[in-house]
Amino acid sequence: MKYSKLLLIIILCQIIPYRFATAQNMAAFRRPAVVISPEIQPDQKVIFRLLAPKATEVTVSGEWIPGFGASEPMVKNDTGLWTLTAGPLNPELYGYTFNVDGIRTIDPNNVQVRRDGARYENFLIIPGTASELYIHTEVPHGTLTKNWYKSGVLGMDRRMYVYTPAGYENGKEKYPVFYLLHGAGGDEDAWSNMGRACQIMDNLIAQGKTKPMIVVMTNGNANQAAAQNDVPQPATSQQFSMADYQKYIGKFEESLVKDVIPFIEKNYRTYTDKDHRAIAGLSMGGGHTQTITNDNPGLFSYIGVFSMGIMSFGVQPQDAARIEAERDGKIEALKNSGYKLYWIGCGKDDFLYQSVITLRNTLDKHNFNYTYRESTGGHTWANWRIYLSEFAPQLFK
Amino acid sequence: MKYSKLLLIIILCQIIPYRFATAQNMAAFRRPAVVISPEIQPDQKVIFRLLAPKATEVTVSGEWIPGFGASEPMVKNDTGLWTLTAGPLNPELYGYTFNVDGIRTIDPNNVQVRRDGARYENFLIIPGTASELYIHTEVPHGTLTKNWYKSGVLGMDRRMYVYTPAGYENGKEKYPVFYLLHGAGGDEDAWSNMGRACQIMDNLIAQGKTKPMIVVMTNGNANQAAAQNDVPQPATSQQFSMADYQKYIGKFEESLVKDVIPFIEKNYRTYTDKDHRAIAGLSMGGGHTQTITNDNPGLFSYIGVFSMGIMSFGVQPQDAARIEAERDGKIEALKNSGYKLYWIGCGKDDFLYQSVITLRNTLDKHNFNYTYRESTGGHTWANWRIYLSEFAPQLFK
Repeated sequence: MKYSKLLLIIILCQIIPYRFATAQNMAAFRRPAVVISPEIQPDQKVIFRLLAPKATEVTVSGEWIPGFGASEPMVKNDTGLWTLTAGPLNPELYGYTFNVDGIRTIDPNNVQVRRDGARYENFLIIPGTASELYIHTEVPHGTLTKNWYKSGVLGMDRRMYVYTPAGYENGKEKYPVFYLLHGAGGDEDAWSNMGRACQIMDNLIAQGKTKPMIVVMTNGNANQAAAQNDVPQPATSQQFSMADYQKYIGKFEESLVKDVIPFIEKNYRTYTDKDHRAIAGLSMGGGHTQTITNDNPGLFSYIGVFSMGIMSFGVQPQDAARIEAERDGKIEALKNSGYKLYWIGCGKDDFLYQSVITLRNTLDKHNFNYTYRESTGGHTWANWRIYLSEFAPQLFK
Repeated sequence: MKYSKLLLIIILCQIIPYRFATAQNMAAFRRPAVVISPEIQPDQKVIFRLLAPKATEVTVSGEWIPGFGASEPMVKNDTGLWTLTAGPLNPELYGYTFNVDGIRTIDPNNVQVRRDGARYENFLIIPGTASELYIHTEVPHGTLTKNWYKSGVLGMDRRMYVYTPAGYENGKEKYPVFYLLHGAGGDEDAWSNMGRACQIMDNLIAQGKTKPMIVVMTNGNANQAAAQNDVPQPATSQQFSMADYQKYIGKFEESLVKDVIPFIEKNYRTYTDKDHRAIAGLSMGGGHTQTITNDNPGLFSYIGVFSMGIMSFGVQPQDAARIEAERDGKIEALKNSGYKLYWIGCGKDDFLYQSVITLRNTLDKHNFNYTYRESTGGHTWANWRIYLSEFAPQLFK
């Protein structure tokens, strides 16, 4: 049959994850047998493989390997196939990359790729209790929407992601809203991508552990319209001077209150009182969260500060007393605002740990009621996923 | 000041696209000067750069280089920086990757990365008239939503992407709907990712060239719930037998009619008559489009078939006459259904060109009215973006 070979190729293209772009692509199917990587074994060991006959050194960097930038060497066999067996690894979601002759690269055989700011890396999930919320499961799924909204404060159209829980589209009831902020280097894509926020919320809601809610994930970089992979900034604006930076201080926080909340409460079926508004952020977003809630007592009843405390950098000595007095006043006002939860999470090894002690001491001075959760580990997405998983169930109850 | 260095790093982290994960990351800022790649020059030449002192061979593969898999060598200087100047390149969107000692890798200095099925690659846009629709511009932006819907036909919850034009959220009027189907190897992410569908629709609508419409981008792989990077298939289901394949033939097409259209017309403000429904697809999706419109005359008034015609593969000789007679009957029914546009696009060098001739001959035999657009080039996303840009303005007028 004239087209039998073509038929086979078309079928293979539907089945094998490989692009189908030109006739010449057929050559791709004369490749050696498909390389499987990573292969997660029942004993939780993971085999990584890369076919790279010309390479002289290949290593794996992965989040399970202690130490920043630490890697483990792969070993080459006589067909040019490099392998490494890692683990057994505890149940968790792990990012990893390969390094081929000095260049970091993604594993070409693993379609699971995540974007961490400007970096792309693979990930894998070792299944188990500790990772079960991060896995897409057969439960009702919420909807993720990439919305554009007008920011009067920042003078541009900007993008946010909005998660609406399963049932929102077909219902009529109103929902509470949780504003979830990323850290430096991230953007509106970070929580759904690095943070598995949709999977976590889907699973928690399906398990009855968390109330259905709308989750709003903003872009906290006041100079950006949207994630730079979708909307690259003009080269000129990448040359950011200190004056430019000063110009934006506090502007995202102001915009969240003046632009984002009104947009959400106009365009979604939401409750609009403080007891149905929550906010949390990690690192820089934990700083944003403190600024927003300190400056707007009575706007949010549920507040989460992840891996961030109070830092005095940028404060001139002659200003310190005035700034502290201002903060004291704001914390008193927040204390009297009738909030229901102020939750602080930090890892023992976080390089901002000391700042969290300062935050706690400051709150203690005011007899300000808060919950402190100290985890193992450092300033990592592993921790932020855990904090989201623990914080969300406490909201709106 | 104690934290001055930390302050600087945090500011840099907000400005420089680089992740901010651990204290040890600070070491990253002791790297050599930032490498800029690609650098698009005013004369439309493009400089690619990669710092790879240990590599012995680095090449660039890009869509501007004729020939499948063709590449051009980069040249190393004594600091280990590899460079290549390409072009001048005509205005267009070009995908590219690097190859380091035999391993394809993305350019670590270019945050613009797209997913083509299981492959990740960079892209760049040379600005000009031919590429202006593909660039994010300061016009009102539509919303992209990742919806989950129940497929009774396929027995699973599945995902689709829905583009709603700027103004949809704040309005009350109804909109026409355009169902836009991907090809083999793609999924519901393909048209917004590889195809720049949101930018094209935003720009066409803002220019007044296209009516505001809802665009529905489905997953045409009947065995998948959603894109495999978000919802990996169980390893067992990747071992797809011919019997499995047979089981799914025609099922996506049936599901589009029985599951997708009812979901959209229930959950969105849409007109629900044929004159407000359009459908188009590329390659495999062009086959789906033919099947859906042949089997459901009067469902769509606007039909687009991109880079796909009629192929006889899989047809047993003894069945050929019966199949042809069935098709003839369906085409007659479609002809009499009162459709308004049947648009066929194909590149001169497309490996499916002959199948498009067969389609045209078949339609001619029935005096079936259609528009034929022959472009240069082959079975490429460059052509499919052009076809979308030309087809959308003809809809619902």
